[in-house]
Amino acid sequence: MSTIVILGAGVMGSALAVPLVDNGHEVRLVGTHLDREIIESISSTGVHPTLERELPAAVRVYQLEELEAAFADAEIVLSGVNSYGVRWAGEQLAPLLEPGQIVLAIAKGVDADADGNVRILPEVLAEPVPADVRTRVQWAAIVGPSIAGEVAARRESCVVFTGPDQDTLDRLAATFRTDWYHVWTSTDLVGAEICAAAKNCYALGVGLAEGELERRLQAASRDRAHNYEAALFAQATAEMRELVALLGGRPETPLWLPGVGDMYVTSTGGRNVRVGRLLGAGLAFTEASARLGDPTLEGAAAIKVFGPALARLTERGVIAESAFPLMRHLYEVVGLEQPLAMPWSRFFGGEPA
Amino acid sequence: MSTIVILGAGVMGSALAVPLVDNGHEVRLVGTHLDREIIESISSTGVHPTLERELPAAVRVYQLEELEAAFADAEIVLSGVNSYGVRWAGEQLAPLLEPGQIVLAIAKGVDADADGNVRILPEVLAEPVPADVRTRVQWAAIVGPSIAGEVAARRESCVVFTGPDQDTLDRLAATFRTDWYHVWTSTDLVGAEICAAAKNCYALGVGLAEGELERRLQAASRDRAHNYEAALFAQATAEMRELVALLGGRPETPLWLPGVGDMYVTSTGGRNVRVGRLLGAGLAFTEASARLGDPTLEGAAAIKVFGPALARLTERGVIAESAFPLMRHLYEVVGLEQPLAMPWSRFFGGEPA
Repeated sequence: MSTIVILGAGVMGSALAVPLVDNGHEVRLVGTHLDREIIESISSTGVHPTLERELPAAVRVYQLEELEAAFADAEIVLSGVNSYGVRWAGEQLAPLLEPGQIVLAIAKGVDADADGNVRILPEVLAEPVPADVRTRVQWAAIVGPSIAGEVAARRESCVVFTGPDQDTLDRLAATFRTDWYHVWTSTDLVGAEICAAAKNCYALGVGLAEGELERRLQAASRDRAHNYEAALFAQATAEMRELVALLGGRPETPLWLPGVGDMYVTSTGGRNVRVGRLLGAGLAFTEASARLGDPTLEGAAAIKVFGPALARLTERGVIAESAFPLMRHLYEVVGLEQPLAMPWSRFFGGEPA
Repeated sequence: MSTIVILGAGVMGSALAVPLVDNGHEVRLVGTHLDREIIESISSTGVHPTLERELPAAVRVYQLEELEAAFADAEIVLSGVNSYGVRWAGEQLAPLLEPGQIVLAIAKGVDADADGNVRILPEVLAEPVPADVRTRVQWAAIVGPSIAGEVAARRESCVVFTGPDQDTLDRLAATFRTDWYHVWTSTDLVGAEICAAAKNCYALGVGLAEGELERRLQAASRDRAHNYEAALFAQATAEMRELVALLGGRPETPLWLPGVGDMYVTSTGGRNVRVGRLLGAGLAFTEASARLGDPTLEGAAAIKVFGPALARLTERGVIAESAFPLMRHLYEVVGLEQPLAMPWSRFFGGEPA
């Protein structure tokens, strides 16, 4: 039996308590300052209000002030915050982490500097941790198609645990694995994280299809533009492979659960697709985001990182101007609020004349 | 301007008349013996009854008896029949084809002999044609994500024309290409055809997810099992790559429009997914097929070819027993009417213990 601290009581962090409790582990779920009502609800009724489901009774809940107490004898720390909270989470963990602990992260996003050098989020998470501890903690992440509500409902899910150390991954996998939560491992942390961030961007792109069709038909329609969506999915797969290669990941990583698998599930619905649909229908990004109540849009956030980074890498001569036409246009639409004009003929290396 | 004969007035063959007429070509649409009412409807009202849409007035329609007349001066012959009609279509074309003509096929399926040797459908189509003509006709095929109704409605579609001769492909592409019907080319005919057949099988597999969920919840539900679907999509991608490699196609072919792109669109709906859903809900294949009115199920037909072929290739020592766990289980369910028991732990090379 292991003791696991989960920092962040959002839907995914909380859902992961389910396989852990099923396996007999001690789970301590610690809310962030944004999760106060969630923790109170679980504490008083057992129900996670956004998952709309009772968590297993064995899950112990803590408010943020109790984080240090929750850390006592913890072997595994799950960073359950989303990409917006990663730096904050690193700051919370910094004074508490001890050598030998394992940190497992679930945020999907990406960071870049002014020169277009892209950094994966586990690096951002680790940054505030003092170097002598940081190098003696094992870092890992969960990627792959995994909708939180389905994990909480114990529906079959196949995911990948990724990080530099195979022994750590094997231990983590054995801790989480059940007969419905299936875990594979990969030491290609960079490739897996790039896929996790990029698939949100491209899923937003897939959403454009339906919106553009609605706009053209001058009315909401139950009709679909499947051919359009599928062409974007194929171009997205090609660009994801190029991105992973460019940033030092392994060629096979985009081709299974972390890449096409996760992009499939993300393209079938969710906030990124919904905002894409509004953009396709003709709204500017700020309008579309406001229409949805300005939610967390990890796809849009990652587009705003990848877009300028690709531009800078082009200026520096690292990549060709013809590369990544879809991601660049997503940035034009989302980041620069330019009109949608899908560059079909630039896809797949360019349509022959 | 070219003259194109389309043999088969089903939805896809007929939809392809639209970009051709838009480009100013002469299109002669010839119904099979199954298409009599379709041809009569177009002839009298202009409306294609299953596409539920008027075809461009310039399309000339013919009943099957007029096939020879339709062939006069034709440069391109489009075989518009589905996989069930390919051999029949080859027999119709055999006495009429002349050296220098181009045959372009759209059927998606596969054939195999008793030793498990797989043949692609353009070979089946060409077989009845006398050898001296067969070798002087150019053979090609259309693959990629392309729902007929959307092509007929002039919605953006990105497809691949494939065949052994690049000049022929370039000519065909220039004949069909419009500003909404985008055409790329590939000389990997084998890889593209294997993808086209296999994606129907795997789309049927994706349908199982929703059915199995309904069965467990004991009622029809609007709830989904996206994680399950996405895991199957990822395993399907892996198996499609292995199939293409096994049968002599090129590694990149499954990774864009002919593979993941077409599988994406096919997995989002259609008959193969619907029968998969009924199988997931617990019906045996013959019941499920009957429930849908025993329609053309190209996915099921291809599963019944691939399943025994993989078994034979395993007996012959060509492939390992652990290879293709998803396709083999699809055959167990569809071909042998065994209960659904998804072999999750055999996916992706096997889940670590």
